[in-house]
Amino acid sequence: MKTSVLALVIFAAIASAPASADDQSLREKAASAGLKALPTTMPQPANNPITPEKITLGKMLFFDPRLSASGLISCNTCHNLGMGGDDNLPTSIGHGWQRGPRNAPTVFNAVFNVAQFWDGRAEDLKAQAKGPVQAGVEMANQPEFVVETLSSMPEYVERFGESFPGEADPVTFDNMAKAIEAFEVTLVTPGAPFDRFMEGDDAAMTPEQKDGLGLFVDRGCTACHTGVNVGGQSYFPFGLIKRPGADILPPNDKGRFKVTHSASDEYVFRAAPLRNTALTAPYFHSGQVWDLKQAVEVMGAAQLGAEIDEAEAGKIVAFLNSLTGEMPKVEYPILPVETATTPKPRF
Amino acid sequence: MKTSVLALVIFAAIASAPASADDQSLREKAASAGLKALPTTMPQPANNPITPEKITLGKMLFFDPRLSASGLISCNTCHNLGMGGDDNLPTSIGHGWQRGPRNAPTVFNAVFNVAQFWDGRAEDLKAQAKGPVQAGVEMANQPEFVVETLSSMPEYVERFGESFPGEADPVTFDNMAKAIEAFEVTLVTPGAPFDRFMEGDDAAMTPEQKDGLGLFVDRGCTACHTGVNVGGQSYFPFGLIKRPGADILPPNDKGRFKVTHSASDEYVFRAAPLRNTALTAPYFHSGQVWDLKQAVEVMGAAQLGAEIDEAEAGKIVAFLNSLTGEMPKVEYPILPVETATTPKPRF
Repeated sequence: MKTSVLALVIFAAIASAPASADDQSLREKAASAGLKALPTTMPQPANNPITPEKITLGKMLFFDPRLSASGLISCNTCHNLGMGGDDNLPTSIGHGWQRGPRNAPTVFNAVFNVAQFWDGRAEDLKAQAKGPVQAGVEMANQPEFVVETLSSMPEYVERFGESFPGEADPVTFDNMAKAIEAFEVTLVTPGAPFDRFMEGDDAAMTPEQKDGLGLFVDRGCTACHTGVNVGGQSYFPFGLIKRPGADILPPNDKGRFKVTHSASDEYVFRAAPLRNTALTAPYFHSGQVWDLKQAVEVMGAAQLGAEIDEAEAGKIVAFLNSLTGEMPKVEYPILPVETATTPKPRF
Repeated sequence: MKTSVLALVIFAAIASAPASADDQSLREKAASAGLKALPTTMPQPANNPITPEKITLGKMLFFDPRLSASGLISCNTCHNLGMGGDDNLPTSIGHGWQRGPRNAPTVFNAVFNVAQFWDGRAEDLKAQAKGPVQAGVEMANQPEFVVETLSSMPEYVERFGESFPGEADPVTFDNMAKAIEAFEVTLVTPGAPFDRFMEGDDAAMTPEQKDGLGLFVDRGCTACHTGVNVGGQSYFPFGLIKRPGADILPPNDKGRFKVTHSASDEYVFRAAPLRNTALTAPYFHSGQVWDLKQAVEVMGAAQLGAEIDEAEAGKIVAFLNSLTGEMPKVEYPILPVETATTPKPRF
């Protein structure tokens, strides 16, 4: 019997072992509340067939600081794949050392969010990718400069051709965004203890994590933080029951109101997706809370009107820690070399 | 016969095939001028035994922006492993968007330089690594904050322990530098056409590249740019024959004079190592020349007092292009997660 077949048989035996009644009941409760394991198949974004060529190109673009005006800032600067897919700063530092208005969300599993940005103003990852490249406080570039930069390097021209076959003029700002989306679709983190638990492995979560999961559902956290990303699926007012202080909810950022101009969307934000949240401090769109337990307590008071005591918050944090998955292995890309026609960095 | 043995036999047959007399003569001329192929064994830096644990730790530190005060800037920001080991900027952008005083040199093959920095003020890579971390215009950090940061993350504490076994207090600023040196020792780029030519493969370089190599020796370029790194071995006045303009040689940067305080060291710099130079524009310590052919012409006038005409400069550039080696494959490291005691970023 080959090793792989043997492993499969053993795996099947474990997977089909009868779960404890309590664990099975907890699993069903979580599933009823909308929580689910990460899918094992690659998501397929709209209007952007994923190919290996496009993923490779997208990885190069994701790491290429020459998408920014200065030549210093890449997607990975604020969505660092070695640091939970964000930058661990309250708000990001961008062009000219300016500070961005909101905390950088993680790029990991972002494909599973209903829309991108804290206010959902980008419908998908390819729409999102165009934002920071052009934002004056982030990469401060312009589409025509980006296209000029990419077109000046023969290797990029060739790779765009391979990634977008049949297009007469493949090096475009839109296609840059599509390639980045293709790479980002691969940035998923399976195998978290929570996922393994949901797939039937009782031992994947500790008793404290299971208690936390039970509390997370019972206290109503799953009203907002649900679905495959444990959040990221819909929009809710921050301060539904009681508005947090101005340090956490600055009055000048009205959230989704800026997108919809509907009064009911004042201080409305996309519920934060909570996968890998242990890696992505500080928390909230304002990035002012560094401690995950404190963030849980803030949420209890602001959204649920419930005093979550320290012991309960500790258990919920234990559950949140079970949402940390396996980071994808990424080989650092060797980027195309510049030529005489590559636009010079602009500070 | 095993495949590897067969490959070895074939390789030996190629390597021992009679070289053309002209090529063999060129090879001997280059060797006489001090040029040589990259060694195939890993260099052993002084007082720092290289181990796999130390290399892994060093890679994490090299990519970790939390070595900087802001949490934004890592070694890789200015010595980008995807862009020839530098940042392709005239001078680097650092803390607070300040501009550094000199062009960032490549980290690739830096272990083969006689000393580090343009003025050789660091005797080796571990001494070099401490500089940018503390420089106010670069990472703007202080050793005590660095040690506090690293000590706050259990994974780093464990890895320092494994990398420096037997030390009572392994998480130190010195050991940070030693681990970074260990990683940087692996950043060599073998297999350049020039290396393969020097090892006996006549076909590795084009006729134009060979003409350029001949000119490079005949015109006296090897008086400064020699040794395994085609430079980086000694110090020479910039403007030996004729000083270039103030744009290229700013009068306020007196080079090695600042290190030795010897009048004879005014405007003296370490000869630039020329491996992978096609990837590391812009050129010179001032980073004001973007075109390699122009850089060759500047050198001819400034250092040799020779008018190198455009055809000759083109051939020398062809030779310099033959110095581009194979970039090492580097898996992007997953960095340790911060804890409550990790110092917060300081802007």
